[in-house]
Amino acid sequence: MVIYDNKQWFNTLVNFSRSYVIQQLFRSTLMVGIVTAIFCVLVIDVFQFEIRFQSSLFSLLGIVLSILLVFRTNTAYDRWWEGRRLWGGLVNNSRDLALMMHSMLDRGNMEDRNYFAKHIANFAVALKEHLRNGVKLEELYHLDEREIVMYKQRQHIPNQIIASLYERTQHLCRSEAITGFDSIPIRTHLQAFTDILGACERIKRTPIPFSYSIYIKIFIMLYALILPFGLIEEFGYFTIFLEMLLFYAFIGIELMAEEIEDPFGLDCNDLPTGTIATTIKNNVYEILCLYKEVEKEKVRELYEKVF
Amino acid sequence: MVIYDNKQWFNTLVNFSRSYVIQQLFRSTLMVGIVTAIFCVLVIDVFQFEIRFQSSLFSLLGIVLSILLVFRTNTAYDRWWEGRRLWGGLVNNSRDLALMMHSMLDRGNMEDRNYFAKHIANFAVALKEHLRNGVKLEELYHLDEREIVMYKQRQHIPNQIIASLYERTQHLCRSEAITGFDSIPIRTHLQAFTDILGACERIKRTPIPFSYSIYIKIFIMLYALILPFGLIEEFGYFTIFLEMLLFYAFIGIELMAEEIEDPFGLDCNDLPTGTIATTIKNNVYEILCLYKEVEKEKVRELYEKVF
Amino acid sequence: MVIYDNKQWFNTLVNFSRSYVIQQLFRSTLMVGIVTAIFCVLVIDVFQFEIRFQSSLFSLLGIVLSILLVFRTNTAYDRWWEGRRLWGGLVNNSRDLALMMHSMLDRGNMEDRNYFAKHIANFAVALKEHLRNGVKLEELYHLDEREIVMYKQRQHIPNQIIASLYERTQHLCRSEAITGFDSIPIRTHLQAFTDILGACERIKRTPIPFSYSIYIKIFIMLYALILPFGLIEEFGYFTIFLEMLLFYAFIGIELMAEEIEDPFGLDCNDLPTGTIATTIKNNVYEILCLYKEVEKEKVRELYEKVF
Amino acid sequence: MVIYDNKQWFNTLVNFSRSYVIQQLFRSTLMVGIVTAIFCVLVIDVFQFEIRFQSSLFSLLGIVLSILLVFRTNTAYDRWWEGRRLWGGLVNNSRDLALMMHSMLDRGNMEDRNYFAKHIANFAVALKEHLRNGVKLEELYHLDEREIVMYKQRQHIPNQIIASLYERTQHLCRSEAITGFDSIPIRTHLQAFTDILGACERIKRTPIPFSYSIYIKIFIMLYALILPFGLIEEFGYFTIFLEMLLFYAFIGIELMAEEIEDPFGLDCNDLPTGTIATTIKNNVYEILCLYKEVEKEKVRELYEKVF
Amino acid sequence: MVIYDNKQWFNTLVNFSRSYVIQQLFRSTLMVGIVTAIFCVLVIDVFQFEIRFQSSLFSLLGIVLSILLVFRTNTAYDRWWEGRRLWGGLVNNSRDLALMMHSMLDRGNMEDRNYFAKHIANFAVALKEHLRNGVKLEELYHLDEREIVMYKQRQHIPNQIIASLYERTQHLCRSEAITGFDSIPIRTHLQAFTDILGACERIKRTPIPFSYSIYIKIFIMLYALILPFGLIEEFGYFTIFLEMLLFYAFIGIELMAEEIEDPFGLDCNDLPTGTIATTIKNNVYEILCLYKEVEKEKVRELYEKVF
Repeated sequence: MVIYDNKQWFNTLVNFSRSYVIQQLFRSTLMVGIVTAIFCVLVIDVFQFEIRFQSSLFSLLGIVLSILLVFRTNTAYDRWWEGRRLWGGLVNNSRDLALMMHSMLDRGNMEDRNYFAKHIANFAVALKEHLRNGVKLEELYHLDEREIVMYKQRQHIPNQIIASLYERTQHLCRSEAITGFDSIPIRTHLQAFTDILGACERIKRTPIPFSYSIYIKIFIMLYALILPFGLIEEFGYFTIFLEMLLFYAFIGIELMAEEIEDPFGLDCNDLPTGTIATTIKNNVYEILCLYKEVEKEKVRELYEKVF
Repeated sequence: MVIYDNKQWFNTLVNFSRSYVIQQLFRSTLMVGIVTAIFCVLVIDVFQFEIRFQSSLFSLLGIVLSILLVFRTNTAYDRWWEGRRLWGGLVNNSRDLALMMHSMLDRGNMEDRNYFAKHIANFAVALKEHLRNGVKLEELYHLDEREIVMYKQRQHIPNQIIASLYERTQHLCRSEAITGFDSIPIRTHLQAFTDILGACERIKRTPIPFSYSIYIKIFIMLYALILPFGLIEEFGYFTIFLEMLLFYAFIGIELMAEEIEDPFGLDCNDLPTGTIATTIKNNVYEILCLYKEVEKEKVRELYEKVF
Repeated sequence: MVIYDNKQWFNTLVNFSRSYVIQQLFRSTLMVGIVTAIFCVLVIDVFQFEIRFQSSLFSLLGIVLSILLVFRTNTAYDRWWEGRRLWGGLVNNSRDLALMMHSMLDRGNMEDRNYFAKHIANFAVALKEHLRNGVKLEELYHLDEREIVMYKQRQHIPNQIIASLYERTQHLCRSEAITGFDSIPIRTHLQAFTDILGACERIKRTPIPFSYSIYIKIFIMLYALILPFGLIEEFGYFTIFLEMLLFYAFIGIELMAEEIEDPFGLDCNDLPTGTIATTIKNNVYEILCLYKEVEKEKVRELYEKVF
Repeated sequence: MVIYDNKQWFNTLVNFSRSYVIQQLFRSTLMVGIVTAIFCVLVIDVFQFEIRFQSSLFSLLGIVLSILLVFRTNTAYDRWWEGRRLWGGLVNNSRDLALMMHSMLDRGNMEDRNYFAKHIANFAVALKEHLRNGVKLEELYHLDEREIVMYKQRQHIPNQIIASLYERTQHLCRSEAITGFDSIPIRTHLQAFTDILGACERIKRTPIPFSYSIYIKIFIMLYALILPFGLIEEFGYFTIFLEMLLFYAFIGIELMAEEIEDPFGLDCNDLPTGTIATTIKNNVYEILCLYKEVEKEKVRELYEKVF
Repeated sequence: MVIYDNKQWFNTLVNFSRSYVIQQLFRSTLMVGIVTAIFCVLVIDVFQFEIRFQSSLFSLLGIVLSILLVFRTNTAYDRWWEGRRLWGGLVNNSRDLALMMHSMLDRGNMEDRNYFAKHIANFAVALKEHLRNGVKLEELYHLDEREIVMYKQRQHIPNQIIASLYERTQHLCRSEAITGFDSIPIRTHLQAFTDILGACERIKRTPIPFSYSIYIKIFIMLYALILPFGLIEEFGYFTIFLEMLLFYAFIGIELMAEEIEDPFGLDCNDLPTGTIATTIKNNVYEILCLYKEVEKEKVRELYEKVF
C-alpha cells in the first residue's frame, strides 16, 4: 500500500509513478495513442478515406462498457475491502484474546503469557506468508527445535498454530487455571482465527469467474479498435487524444480492478499485511506485559510503500 | 471453475475456448452476424429500401437494457459469491470442529477421532453430490454395512450425517468425556452445517423469478431484431459488425448470468465443490492426527478445469 | 413460483403465459399500441400536423426513469430475496431443532418426539397461512380438542405455537430430561422462530412508501403520454412499435416489482411457502424417526406452478 | 404511513393528495411551470431572442444529476428501511422476551408477569415518543406514583425502563426463581433493547452530511434555471411542459428523500411507530396470559394514515 | 458536523458557507470559470479559431466519469456511515455495560460503580483523541497518579483502558461478587470495545487505494481541460457557465468524498465524536446512579458546528 494524503492533490499527482498500475496504464495508453496516430495519418492524409459515422452509437457502447466496468470495480473493491476487514478483525481478535488471557493468567505466569503471545503473533505472520508464497519458518518468532520439526511435517501451518492454541486452552481448562465460563470467549476467538484464515483463502483462490474476465477483455479490445472509425470524421487528428482518453478510462478501471482483486500480494495497492502483523505482535506483547519484545513503531513518510 | 491468472491478458484471451459460455456466445453472435448480413444485402442492394432512422432512440433502449442486465448480473453474481462464501464457511467449520475435537479428545482415542473425521469429510462430499444429482453412496468415505443400509432408507442423507454427529456429541457429553461448556461450540458448528446445507439448497432451488427471466429474454430478442433498422441508414454494411458487437454485449451478460446463477453444477464457471470437499477431508484428517488418510494436494495447471 | 430451466430459452419463451404478470404486460402494451396507432393516423394522415421534436430529450427522461425503476426493482427484489432467506432460515431452524431434540430425547420417548415434530411442522403451516389470509385451523396437523379451543381464543396463532414449544422445553429442563447447557441452543432456535415470524410480517406490511409508488406511476404515465410527440416526426408509423417497446420496458419493471414486493401471496412469482412447509414437515418427522408421517416428495414438472 | 394496495393503480393515483410531499411536489412544479411560461412568452413573443443551443449537453447534466439523486435516494431509503427493521426487531424482541418469561414464571405469579408486560409495553411507547418530541409520562401504561417521580428526574427515560428490567431480572436470578442459564437469553434481549434504542437515535440525529445536502440543492436549482435555454429553440412553448416534467423528476426524488430520511416523525411516509407500539402491548399481554389488557385490533381502511 | 434541518431549503442555502468544502468548491469553480473565460475570449474574439466538435462524445466521457464518481462517493459514504455506526455501537455498548453493572453491583458499592463509570467514559474520550492526534491524558476524567504514570509508558492507551476493565471484571468474578453467568455478557461488551476500536483504526488508516485516487484526479483534470473545446462552437460565451457547472458537479463529488472518507477528524462533515463521548459519559454516570457527575446537555442551535 502506498501511504498518501488524499487532500494534497498536487503531491499526489506528482507521485503518480509510485503506483505500478498507473505507470502501466500510461504506457499502454501511449501505445494506443501511437497506433491511433498512424491510423489517422493513413486515413486522413495518405488514403483520404471518407468515413461518415456519427459517434452516438459509439457512445451507447461506451456507456454499456462503463456500466459493466463499474460492476467489475465493485466486485474487486469488495474483495479488497473484505480483505482489509478480515485483517482488521485479526487485529481485534488478537488483541482481545491477549487482553482476556492477561486478565485470566497470574502476573507471574510468564510461561503461559509467552506461549500465547508467541503463538498469536506467529499466526499473523504465518497467515501473511501463507497468502503469498507459503510460510517460511525463519520468519516466525522464537520457534524451538520441536516446533520446527513439527511445522515442517505439516501441509498447513496456520491450522497447526491454532491447534496449539486450542490444546493449551484445553490444558488450562483441565488444570482448572481457567473456568468453563472463561473458555467460552477464548474458543470464540480461536474460531474467529479459523474463520479469518478460511475467508482470506477464499478471496485469494476465487477471482471473478473466467468468462467475465475474458468477456470484458474482449469487449475493451474491440471497442478500442472500432472507436477511431467513429471519431475520425468529426474530430480529425483530435481523434488521437480522445481515443487515448477513452482507452485510459476503460483500461484503467480494468487494470486497477485486477490489481486489487487479490489484496494479499505485493502489488502496489495491496494490503500492508506485513505491517499489520508487526502491529499485532507489538500490541499482544505489550498487553501481556512482556515489554522487552515490544519494538518501536516505525515512522512512515508520505508516499512510502508498506507491505 | 477454470484456473487462470487475471494479469496474463494474452494467455487468457488465447484460452477463451475453455469457457463453454464464451464459445456459445461466439457461435450465437456469429449467427446473428450472418442474419444481419443477409438483411443488409436485401435492404441495400436487392430492394434498396430507404430507412431514415437516427440511432438516438436505439441508444436509449440499449441503455435501459444494459441497466437491467446489470441488475441481472448483480443478482446472479451475488448467488455465486454467496455459494462460495457458504463453501468457504463449510471449510472453516469443518476445520474448527476438527481442531476442537482434537483438543478435547485424548491422543489415543482413535475411535472417536476416526468417527468425527469420517463424518465431517463425508458431509462435504454428500453436500456436493446432493447439490448436483443426488448422493451416490460409493463416493462417501469408509462406510460400513450398517451405514449403507441406513442411508439407503433415508430421503435426505446430509441431514442424516449431521444427525450422527449430534448423537455422538450427545453420547460424549453423557459419558462426561466432554463437559457442557465443551458442547456449546460443538453444537454451534453442527448448527452451522445445517445452515450451510439449507442455504445451498435455497440458492439451487430459487432462480431469479420466472417473469424477470422471460421479460429480459424477450427484450433482448426484440432489441436485436429492431436494431439493424436503426443502424443501416447511417452505417451501411458496417451495421453487421455493430449489431454483432451489441448482441455480444447484451446476450453475453445474460448467458454468463444464467451460468453462474446455480453455482453448484458442472458448468465452466461453477464452484470447485469437489476440490473443496477433498481439501476438507485432508485438513480434517491432518488436524486429528490421522496422517495415513491425508493425500498429497494435486498441482493444478493454469487453465485447467476443476470441479 | 413457476419452476423453469433458465437455459432453455425456447421453452421458457413458449411458456410465457404461465406468468400472469407477463400476460397483463402484453395486454397493456397492446392497448398502448392501439392508442398510439390511432394517434399516428390522426397526426400523419388526418390532420397532417407537423411536430418537429428531436428525441434526445426524451432519451434523457427515459434514462432518468429507468434509473429510478432499477431502484424500484432492487428494493422489491431485496424483499423477495429476504423473504426467501427467511423461509430458508425456517427450514434450517426446524431441521436443526429436530436434530437436536433427536439427539437429546431417548429413542423410545415417542410422546415428546411427536410433540416437537407436530409443533415445528405446524409452525411452518401456520406462518404460511398467517402471511396470506389468516390461519385456518383445519390445515394444522393433528390438533386435539384442547388445542383447537385454545387457538380459537387467540389473536395470534404462530406466537401461541412458539409459546407451546417454550413451555415444553422449560418443562423438560425442570424435569432434568435436558440440561441447562442443552437449553441454550434450543432457545436460540425458538428465538429464531420469533425473528422469522416478525421479519415476514414486516415485509408483508411495509410496501415501498406511498409517495414513491405514486411518483413512479405518474412518471410512467406522463412519459408514455408525451413520447409519441417526440417520435412521430422521425419514425412515422414505426412510432407505434417503438412506443410499445418502451412502454413494455418501463411498465414491465414496475409490474414485476409490484408482484414480488409481497412475496408470500399467491402471485405467480411468489415464494412456494406451502411446498416449503411440507418439506419441513417431512424432514422433521424423518429426523425424529417418526417414519409413518413422512410423505413421498411430489415430482414437479417444468413450468408447473407451486405455492 | 399511508396504507395502500400497490396493484390498484387507479385508486392509488386518485388518492395522491393523501401524501403531503406529492401535494408539495405538484405545487412547486406548477410554480416552475408558470415561471417558465413567462420566460417563454418573453423570449419567443416579446423580445424574439434567438437561442440556438442543442439539448445534448443538458442531457449530460441531467444524467449526472439523476445518478446523484439515486445515491441520495438509496441512502435515505436505507435509513427508512433500517428504521423499519429496528422496529420489527423491537416487536420480535418484545414478543420473545414475553414468551420466555411466560415459560419461566409460574402461571400464578401475576406480579412478575404484570411487571414485565408493563415495562416491555412501556419501552415501545417511550421509544416512540423519545424519537419524536420527548417522552410524555401520561402516555405510558399503569405508572404508579413512585415511577412518575423517578422518571421525572431522569434525562433519558428509555434507558431507565431497561434498567428496571435488568434489575428485576437480577432479582429473579438472585432469588433463584430463574437459573443462570435462563438469564443468558433474557440479557440478550435486554441488550437488544439498548441496541435498537441507540440505532434509532443514530438514524434520527445523523442526516446526510451537510455538504451533500447543499450541493444537491444548488445543483437542482441551477439545472432548473438553465434548462429552458436549452429547450426553447427546439421545443418552443412545449418547453413549459418539459421543464415541468424534468423538475418534477428531480425535485420529487429530493423531496421524498428528505421525507423518509428521518422515518420516526409524523410525515406522511414515516413509520407507524405508534401502531407498532400498540401491537407490541397487545402481543405481550396476550402471551403472558393477561387477557384483560388486550385490546381489539383496529380495522384499517385503504388510504388511511397510521402513525 | 453541522446541525441543520433538511427541509428548510432557504436557510440551508443561505448557510452554505458553514461548510468549508462548499466554500472551497466555489473558489475552485470560480477559478475554472475565469480560465475558461480567457480561453473563450482568445478563441472567439482574438484568434477567431474554428473548432467544430459536437458535444456528444464529451457527454459519453462525462457519463463515464460520473459513474466512476458515484462509485467513489459510495465507498466514501460507506466509511462515513460505518464510522457513525461504530460510534453508535460504542454508545449502545457503554450504556448496556453500565446497565448491567448497575443491576449486578450493590447500590452502596460506590467504588466499583465509580471505577466502571470512569473507565467507560474515558474509553470514549481516549478513542476520540486516538483517532485524531493521539491521546492527551489531561482530557481523561479523574485520573489518579498511578494511572497517569502507567498510561504514559504505554504506546496504546485505549487498549490499556480495556485491559483495566477486563482485570476488574476478572477480580469481581474471582471474589464471587458476580457469577460466571454474569461474566458472559460483560466480556461480550468488552470485546465489542476492542472491535469498535479496531474498526475505527481500519477506517482511518485505509483510504481508497492510491491508484484510484490518482486515476480519478487525472480524469477530472483532463476532462475539465478538453471540455471547452467541445462546447465553444455550439455555446460561445455560454461555455463559461456550462464548464463551471460541470466542473462544479464533478469536482464537488470528489471533494466531498475526500472530506468524509476519514470521518473522525475535524472537517466540517466529520462525526461529532466529542459530543458523543460526552453523551456517553453523562448516560453512564446517570445509569450507575452517580448523579453528581451528570452535566446538563447543551442546547444546540441550527447550523452550529459540533465535533
